[in-house]
Amino acid sequence: MTSSSTPVSPSVSVREVGLRDGLQSIARTVPTATKLDWLRAAHAAGLREIEVGSFVPARLLPQLADTAELVAAARALPGLTTSVLVPNLKGAQAALDSGADLMLLPLSASHAHSLANLRKTPDEVVAEIARIRAARDAAGSRCKLEVGMSTAFGCTLQGEVAESEVLRLLQAVLDAGADVVGLADTVGYANPLQVQRLFERARAVAGDRLGCAHFHDTRGLGLANAYAAWQTGVRQFDGCVGGIGGCPHAPGASGNVATEDLAWLFASMGVATGLDFNALIALRARIGQWLEGEALHGAIWRAGLPKNLKEAA
Amino acid sequence: MTSSSTPVSPSVSVREVGLRDGLQSIARTVPTATKLDWLRAAHAAGLREIEVGSFVPARLLPQLADTAELVAAARALPGLTTSVLVPNLKGAQAALDSGADLMLLPLSASHAHSLANLRKTPDEVVAEIARIRAARDAAGSRCKLEVGMSTAFGCTLQGEVAESEVLRLLQAVLDAGADVVGLADTVGYANPLQVQRLFERARAVAGDRLGCAHFHDTRGLGLANAYAAWQTGVRQFDGCVGGIGGCPHAPGASGNVATEDLAWLFASMGVATGLDFNALIALRARIGQWLEGEALHGAIWRAGLPKNLKEAA
Repeated sequence: MTSSSTPVSPSVSVREVGLRDGLQSIARTVPTATKLDWLRAAHAAGLREIEVGSFVPARLLPQLADTAELVAAARALPGLTTSVLVPNLKGAQAALDSGADLMLLPLSASHAHSLANLRKTPDEVVAEIARIRAARDAAGSRCKLEVGMSTAFGCTLQGEVAESEVLRLLQAVLDAGADVVGLADTVGYANPLQVQRLFERARAVAGDRLGCAHFHDTRGLGLANAYAAWQTGVRQFDGCVGGIGGCPHAPGASGNVATEDLAWLFASMGVATGLDFNALIALRARIGQWLEGEALHGAIWRAGLPKNLKEAA
Repeated sequence: MTSSSTPVSPSVSVREVGLRDGLQSIARTVPTATKLDWLRAAHAAGLREIEVGSFVPARLLPQLADTAELVAAARALPGLTTSVLVPNLKGAQAALDSGADLMLLPLSASHAHSLANLRKTPDEVVAEIARIRAARDAAGSRCKLEVGMSTAFGCTLQGEVAESEVLRLLQAVLDAGADVVGLADTVGYANPLQVQRLFERARAVAGDRLGCAHFHDTRGLGLANAYAAWQTGVRQFDGCVGGIGGCPHAPGASGNVATEDLAWLFASMGVATGLDFNALIALRARIGQWLEGEALHGAIWRAGLPKNLKEAA
């Protein structure tokens, strides 16, 4: 008997971020009705946390302008944690107003990336986190405040990002009042050994406030990195059905780790995810139609499940 | 500083098997002159073990009928270990005659696969190994005898393959006189946890006679599995430049782990391989021309090396 037949560990949860990280890198605007189909199909496939959009000014990301509408629809789905990305206090205010369950604020550990993307230094973002936390508490909201530490494993602009700086910012983010903080390989630079080391060090700082691992499969190491993070005790991962979310400036490069590939990785190891593999593959096909002309990525959809798991399913 | 700048461990070697495992699954016959270019380019890219073909009857695999010629050319390349696959004693005799440095005999741990592919039970193959060992010793040859345990992680025909059977056969193969034995995920069923467990158990049986890890990337876990094997102490990996070697019966499914992806995995972790990344990518492009119409696979070729490693290279 191989491991595939015996559960070996607590379950893993995958947060679907295609409607945000996927769509923000695609110029076209997907109609809200289509996004609602997408959202409901993702929920029906077993996803229990979905990042439905981003509260950024519509002139910057018109394709995410319907985020409030998506939050409202997501809140009606049973057992679903509705997440949104917020770039700043103003976005956080919109998230609190929307009734989202979780707001995710990105903080770039790379100073160069932070300045280029958010026009703020990382420490200015830390100060904003404190303001968001205060606003959340003042509103009496139970909306969770998560910080995603982007470019934690390297940066296209500045190259290497010092681990000491990542850990310093991690502590600062926790001190500023984030409920949970995750680490993101925004540009596909991470390697498994680095993932193992940084998540171990991050856990020593953050304890059980260390949250999600967010990997891009830009250079093919997405699943190896997910495995390495899992080995250190990470139990939550971001993914996009169809592996969308690639950088528009690097055509052909893969995007986020595909949700269905994460589902396969963990299923193959006997780790429960609650995900319905066939429903994910069916959703992938629909996304391919909705985003006709965009490249989808991922691996497992080509060959399908192996014989032993197919029979078990 | 991330790990990418500091070597962390002894080096890893990659055996290039494209000229054998890659070409045997492609119906067309590549001209010998092209294969010689391929061989020399692989050697120039730093590969120091290359499986150049297979001593099987030409009526079965006409595309590998020039194996003796390739062995002769490979032997002239400095520092190169010239490997060939042999299916049986007759093939081994041809390998000994050719002057190859290493002959690799596949033994399928799956009884169903063994019967279908070799028309022998695994234990009949063990008996053949003993005959090959005796012939090698009688010839006074120093040709190394390696056994590749295929379908060690699962089988398209019988599904699961019992680990106890893999370990029993491993011991039997060593007792029969194999110098070294490796484990192969012939059909892309393996998962990293299974890889870790089986290689650890195999090492307990075989010690330093445990050799190469051979992974297919059929379902996207090739590099995660390579990382898991590396964690257990495996330091030799099979790969094909361009990720060729997919099963002809599963169009679109990836083949062997791409050599250039292995090069990137280990380089990213600061583990030396001696491989010239740019030369591998250039060879990949030539293979694409030589095999026009065939699908190549792999990941790193699309995005290229990240900024920090590119500057270091």
